[in-house]
Amino acid sequence: MERAPGAYRILNSENLPALLAGMEDVRALLGGRPEDWRVREVGDGNLNLVFIVEGAGGSVCVKQALPYVRAAGPSWPMSPQRAFFENAYFTAVAPHVDGLIPRVYRYEPLLYCTVMERLSPHIILRQGLIAGRRYANVARDIGDYVARATFFTSDLAWPFERKMDGIALFAGNKALIRITVDLVFADPYRQSERNRHTSPQLDAVVADLRRDGPLKAAAARFGQKFLSDLQALVHGDLHSGSIMVTEQDSRVIDPEFACYGPIGFDLGAFLGNLLLNWYSQPGHASADDDRSAYQRWILEQARTFWEAFRGRFLALWAEHGKGDAFPAAMFGAGDAAALQSARSEFVDSLFADMLGFGACKMIRRIQGFAHVIDFEQIRDADTRAGCEARALALARLLLTHPRQFRSIDDLIDAVPRVAAEERPRKR
Amino acid sequence: MERAPGAYRILNSENLPALLAGMEDVRALLGGRPEDWRVREVGDGNLNLVFIVEGAGGSVCVKQALPYVRAAGPSWPMSPQRAFFENAYFTAVAPHVDGLIPRVYRYEPLLYCTVMERLSPHIILRQGLIAGRRYANVARDIGDYVARATFFTSDLAWPFERKMDGIALFAGNKALIRITVDLVFADPYRQSERNRHTSPQLDAVVADLRRDGPLKAAAARFGQKFLSDLQALVHGDLHSGSIMVTEQDSRVIDPEFACYGPIGFDLGAFLGNLLLNWYSQPGHASADDDRSAYQRWILEQARTFWEAFRGRFLALWAEHGKGDAFPAAMFGAGDAAALQSARSEFVDSLFADMLGFGACKMIRRIQGFAHVIDFEQIRDADTRAGCEARALALARLLLTHPRQFRSIDDLIDAVPRVAAEERPRKR
Repeated sequence: MERAPGAYRILNSENLPALLAGMEDVRALLGGRPEDWRVREVGDGNLNLVFIVEGAGGSVCVKQALPYVRAAGPSWPMSPQRAFFENAYFTAVAPHVDGLIPRVYRYEPLLYCTVMERLSPHIILRQGLIAGRRYANVARDIGDYVARATFFTSDLAWPFERKMDGIALFAGNKALIRITVDLVFADPYRQSERNRHTSPQLDAVVADLRRDGPLKAAAARFGQKFLSDLQALVHGDLHSGSIMVTEQDSRVIDPEFACYGPIGFDLGAFLGNLLLNWYSQPGHASADDDRSAYQRWILEQARTFWEAFRGRFLALWAEHGKGDAFPAAMFGAGDAAALQSARSEFVDSLFADMLGFGACKMIRRIQGFAHVIDFEQIRDADTRAGCEARALALARLLLTHPRQFRSIDDLIDAVPRVAAEERPRKR
Repeated sequence: MERAPGAYRILNSENLPALLAGMEDVRALLGGRPEDWRVREVGDGNLNLVFIVEGAGGSVCVKQALPYVRAAGPSWPMSPQRAFFENAYFTAVAPHVDGLIPRVYRYEPLLYCTVMERLSPHIILRQGLIAGRRYANVARDIGDYVARATFFTSDLAWPFERKMDGIALFAGNKALIRITVDLVFADPYRQSERNRHTSPQLDAVVADLRRDGPLKAAAARFGQKFLSDLQALVHGDLHSGSIMVTEQDSRVIDPEFACYGPIGFDLGAFLGNLLLNWYSQPGHASADDDRSAYQRWILEQARTFWEAFRGRFLALWAEHGKGDAFPAAMFGAGDAAALQSARSEFVDSLFADMLGFGACKMIRRIQGFAHVIDFEQIRDADTRAGCEARALALARLLLTHPRQFRSIDDLIDAVPRVAAEERPRKR
């Protein structure tokens, strides 16, 4: 049976050039003859196909959502609708985060496929951090990015109707939000076949955490907040694997988990993954580099990230606060101090959310379904377990003693202190 | 030009019987011949037509949304879509609030018209409170009602997908939410042609409040929360004019402002209007009743309302907590104390929200667009202004010193104390 032209089909190196040749701008960008274009499939994730297409004049990246879980095959179906939400997210934030996302040339709704800028020579930030490389701009860029992307999709910037339309639209991204709800906020805190951890080294630590009622209650409160506190459009998965970098340039990719939610969820994803990387560093040490200097650099990045976010968010609020939340018409010249104080308090609440969500993200990467290569690449299980146990100890402290963390300094002081205090347990 | 049968037309005593005669169950309920049914239009609100239709066997109430503001006429158009959301709200909460809303016999989508139970001999609670009548059950009923209606539309009760579908649906009720956003959270705090207050007696008090930066910042924070903290489906206008009562029976009506929002918004509407009534009582005193005993009864109702809500909400959570927020699978027998403590903290946050939203509701009824007859019926302007000033003083305290109000006792102590302290200002 013939399919309608443009109907869903799985892309491959045979049919992709014809598709791209039909897009005038993409064809011009690639240059030369379509039959000479080189197509490579480079996807390494669980869900999507990713192609690099190179022509005589340039190259593009093509990402297609499969209608099933790639790692499992067609027997595990999953709607490719996430590509729609990824594109909707890019479209919503693009006017505000110029230069910090890839250029999108074309979204093909029936193919659930995005043709976008090929980022080169960028690499995934996580890989750079594991390798001990320094990126002068990334922490400031991503702080700036989160401030812009969330401020301009919040009620602080626009009449509320705009956010409400966005909420209605992204409410359709339930399949991906379900993954977050289960894998971040529930499974890690209970027995589940989807969980794993470094065993047997971490068995006692994990069991202990899963019996820690106050910790679980705190994590559950953040889970409740994730579902209810719809402050802005969030990326939903803003870890160091969703950021591509060069020495100078930073780009946010893969927003398929996008939804309306708490701003602290994106902040916590980035921060939590920086901290996971910090705790993983002893596992990547070599004879001539114990990585302690690099750890100090990582903590500086945590500070830079938060301060960049805070500064940009407050500056945007001061200049573009034209929304229905804290309406400008209510406040006159005499109210400057009160308004400034209210804005600071609001940003303080985002800081507290960042730490709580960050802690949840750390925990789920150590004793949940999806782990991070920062730890996975540490071959020696005892070393890896030690790193992971120290990261868990910080996450527990963040969730159960939030009042010890009033400022970014409190966090920066605590990270190495917790590492020094947390000794491997007897088994 | 002929209209399609069922197309929108404004109902009247001529065309309404034919419509109802076509509804088999309604026809049977009314009894007798349609030409003998008596039809009276009794609506006294700003927006809708309300008919009572009486037959030989019974009676019904018919409410139709007009496509313009009734008080202004067709020159001020307004979508009748609110009737759809009113019906959607009743449909969503009906399974959980049995007996506390009117029975809905029929919703006619093209006519934006609801045929429902005629409540008789019920009167509007606000009228009863002004008259100094006591209703033994209403505070407990409404506390119970808010607990049931909000718990069962929150993420505590069901998988999150259900609330998310509801959020997407009620996001369409923007025209009415716009009214709340402007009239509750913005206009009262600034100069606006829509505002009015008892003048000149209250001029200084109102001007002073509009210069109070910390108060405005606190009100704005609740406005921001109203738009972002989508905990549950809320009625959106749950004041004493939206409740009909007999000595024994209580019914919630008029949920056309329904939306997803903070649970405290409904709690605050009821509480705030009880408190407005308390402060209005000196204006309704007579030679043989200074209303001080009735004021004590009102404050008992505030306590009963909160305790009924709290008790029911926690009981529902314990028995029906099957949602994605605080997932039951995370918590074992050993976590009972931690979970109990987390639930208490959550309910404490609803208490704080109730006071803040209640204060916003009080302020808007005294210096905003829409006033309450509790005050409006006090003919002597000086007396009225004194009552209003004392109510404003409490609202200011609630917003600017929330930490003075940790429990319902703190509130009940403060209400008469503030009244005693607040002396009329010199003009």
